[in-house]
Amino acid sequence: MAPAEVKALLFDVFGTTVDWRSGVTRAGEELERRKGEDLRGVDWAAFADAWRAEYRPSMDRVMRGEIPWTNLDGLHRASLEALLRRFGISELSEEEKEFLVCAWHRLDPWPDVVEGLRRLRRRYIVAPLSNGNVALLTDMARRAGLPWDLILSAEWVRRYKPDPATYLLLPRLFSLRPGQAMMVAAHPDDLHGARRAGLRTAFVPRPLEFGPGGPTQPAEGPFDVVAEDFVELAERLGA
Amino acid sequence: MAPAEVKALLFDVFGTTVDWRSGVTRAGEELERRKGEDLRGVDWAAFADAWRAEYRPSMDRVMRGEIPWTNLDGLHRASLEALLRRFGISELSEEEKEFLVCAWHRLDPWPDVVEGLRRLRRRYIVAPLSNGNVALLTDMARRAGLPWDLILSAEWVRRYKPDPATYLLLPRLFSLRPGQAMMVAAHPDDLHGARRAGLRTAFVPRPLEFGPGGPTQPAEGPFDVVAEDFVELAERLGA
Repeated sequence: MAPAEVKALLFDVFGTTVDWRSGVTRAGEELERRKGEDLRGVDWAAFADAWRAEYRPSMDRVMRGEIPWTNLDGLHRASLEALLRRFGISELSEEEKEFLVCAWHRLDPWPDVVEGLRRLRRRYIVAPLSNGNVALLTDMARRAGLPWDLILSAEWVRRYKPDPATYLLLPRLFSLRPGQAMMVAAHPDDLHGARRAGLRTAFVPRPLEFGPGGPTQPAEGPFDVVAEDFVELAERLGA
Repeated sequence: MAPAEVKALLFDVFGTTVDWRSGVTRAGEELERRKGEDLRGVDWAAFADAWRAEYRPSMDRVMRGEIPWTNLDGLHRASLEALLRRFGISELSEEEKEFLVCAWHRLDPWPDVVEGLRRLRRRYIVAPLSNGNVALLTDMARRAGLPWDLILSAEWVRRYKPDPATYLLLPRLFSLRPGQAMMVAAHPDDLHGARRAGLRTAFVPRPLEFGPGGPTQPAEGPFDVVAEDFVELAERLGA
């Protein structure tokens, strides 16, 4: 059971709720089918991994003030150029680049997610708390049927996780104490950030985030709850 | 049919989507049943009307900078004190006052709303765009089953409608032109504000907003669409 006081659950999205690697890979393959010869032989899974690896450094540049506030679509668009050069991909139109950037809006949830969220939502306010921008999270939810009560994003506070302002957004809006909200993530760093801000934490490992045989995140607690997936989380939290 | 370019519909909430007058009246009556003798004889519908009449003046005080940013729960709480005196209601506990303030979170939608929104959502992004705060709109949506894609509120920009920043919030987040969003409201003033900001407009009259025989809002166009309710709006907009 969750601490009785918990009213709201905040979910990390990329890796925890949705499978970014498969989704970005699929978009690359689709582009390859459309373009033909020009794109033959690109390792799209490696491309997805390399793009994802730019995620933290580009947010850090924003947080250090080296570049002005830029939302995640903007960061993805900016990091794409170097990535295309690195993978020897040239001559993509602006529309084709946009298609790749928007692949991050079209990611599939892990198989347990929709059922788990539906159950959790009966008892708790459920919202993403993601570094993804509001439009990205909205498009994703519409496509994947994610039953969020509201869309919470780093974009609302113009600070990226693990800035405390992100974790405290929901408690502030709902006049809750930080301990009345619980962060759910597959990434210990995210949960440590939430815990420092006073939130409760639930660790849900996603061993396939980086593909079969890929690196996994060690469960370096302490966490208030650990569950195998969102359905087990619902059981643990009495929902 | 809507202009083909429209991607998102923004809905006014109090009066347009939900029946605030019945909901606030009901909360007063419930409090009366609990408290008994002390509250006998209060005209709760008149109380609801009087509370609602404080709405615009209190937001105007925020917008003129006479008081710092205060969300709608805060404004309702502040205006409640004078209202209680005016209606000769004394000796409410803090919890009972909170119960009245939160009546604005527990309002019922008009009968056509849930069906209309479900249909509209298949084709358009649907969101409230209300002066109500984020927690209020979220609580209301959970209770009433309003299938919003995301919760948009004046609270996100700390400006009240008809400030253009409120109407332009969704176009900015979604990189849309203002004309790709349409404001839906029962109040011509709200629609005029949206139109000045470049949005499309849909007028849905709610003749019962102020009760049977109450004043109605004249349809002083021009509006892009006029519909009797949200179901007719869905038909008009091809959803």
